Amino acid sequence: MGDRATGDDDFGAVRDKLRAFVRERDWEQFHTPRSLLLALTGEVGELAEIFQWLTDDEAAQVMRDPATAAQVREEVADVLSYLVRLADVLGVDLIRALDAKIDLNARRYPVELARGSARKYTQLRGQ
Amino acid sequence: MGDRATGDDDFGAVRDKLRAFVRERDWEQFHTPRSLLLALTGEVGELAEIFQWLTDDEAAQVMRDPATAAQVREEVADVLSYLVRLADVLGVDLIRALDAKIDLNARRYPVELARGSARKYTQLRGQ
Amino acid sequence: MGDRATGDDDFGAVRDKLRAFVRERDWEQFHTPRSLLLALTGEVGELAEIFQWLTDDEAAQVMRDPATAAQVREEVADVLSYLVRLADVLGVDLIRALDAKIDLNARRYPVELARGSARKYTQLRGQ
Amino acid sequence: MGDRATGDDDFGAVRDKLRAFVRERDWEQFHTPRSLLLALTGEVGELAEIFQWLTDDEAAQVMRDPATAAQVREEVADVLSYLVRLADVLGVDLIRALDAKIDLNARRYPVELARGSARKYTQLRGQ
Repeated sequence: MGDRATGDDDFGAVRDKLRAFVRERDWEQFHTPRSLLLALTGEVGELAEIFQWLTDDEAAQVMRDPATAAQVREEVADVLSYLVRLADVLGVDLIRALDAKIDLNARRYPVELARGSARKYTQLRGQ
Repeated sequence: MGDRATGDDDFGAVRDKLRAFVRERDWEQFHTPRSLLLALTGEVGELAEIFQWLTDDEAAQVMRDPATAAQVREEVADVLSYLVRLADVLGVDLIRALDAKIDLNARRYPVELARGSARKYTQLRGQ
Repeated sequence: MGDRATGDDDFGAVRDKLRAFVRERDWEQFHTPRSLLLALTGEVGELAEIFQWLTDDEAAQVMRDPATAAQVREEVADVLSYLVRLADVLGVDLIRALDAKIDLNARRYPVELARGSARKYTQLRGQ
Repeated sequence: MGDRATGDDDFGAVRDKLRAFVRERDWEQFHTPRSLLLALTGEVGELAEIFQWLTDDEAAQVMRDPATAAQVREEVADVLSYLVRLADVLGVDLIRALDAKIDLNARRYPVELARGSARKYTQLRGQ
């Protein structure tokens, strides 16, 4: 539970660190899937509150203010923490799941059809 | 954009793969912070819908059904994908942010005070 | 903007009161659909945080504690306020929309097929 | 469960109609506070998906397209329906709660301090 820096490639390490943090506090009893989902909803809400009254231009520059930037980093981390916990209690390999989903979406959204379009894949063909 | 397997330690690789997926489709124009937040809200909603009418007991066993398990993996991946994108456009190192937040929470929630309690840190002391 | 009590039948009155509250503060400039949606997400998140670590049994009794009950009433009101504002700026008659949706759902979920089942209407027939 | 039109002042009527709709289908067993919150999260997510890739200008004109307008009305109604149900099972008078919250906010956000400002009330004074 030290302060060593982690890098981009340490997802497994930070997941294990979070797991240990929870176990040491005997919080596993609270981490049911539905409770983690409500907690995830709560943290997405806190992240949304930072941006809710900003224009898109203001939002694009939100990290220039050190205090707001620190708040964004904290809320983004909170969202990730409950997603990591949810995946952990469900036995989902989060990175592998995202990798597989990108591959699926690459088939659903072929570059030549999807380029520059925000259409859903179900409405992409035959227009 | 191949099908190679990734492991727990490949967060940076999957983030880069997602970044390339978006760039190839010229979708960066849509990925403003507020739009990514709305998309994140949408995906958390889809994940919530899987669990909304389940009891906690049923939710704990949701991965035993292969079709539901596949759906959970997809929705969890979708939530992560927009969180990764949001962090990417904001310049937030997601893993580092989570690592720092665990350290902060370790100070806010000392093991001896927090063990077995779901109280918020602001209500943890002096009772 | 007085303190007179309203009753169940005063939805139009409270919507107008909210509209005046916003106009008096020159807040209409902030109330774009996407910003109201992010604000709605924020308030649903705050409501979720009250319930996130409770069991279903504890959640069913949450109104017995006066302080928590007051908090629930405030958060429920906050969610409603942004939904009312969103409907207002979009020109949606909220009560009429709900009335129409109940009629639609009554056709999608016939009593004899739907009784006691949490299945979605698309999976209700022909099993 | 007829098709009679309701108006702005019929909140009580539509809440009762929704209550009867649920009871006839024996769905009260599913309508626990935490499940209704997850369902509310799901519907806010569906509403967000309509707006996620729109600019603010496009979002302001979203009701001009009849098909999208119908979709917005449905999703707004779905959000309201679960909020009404949640308030109903918790014994919260939704309209009265919103009326009281507007009064509270009128005190927190005095017109002379709050006009044209998106600051939170905790940061409104003494600057």
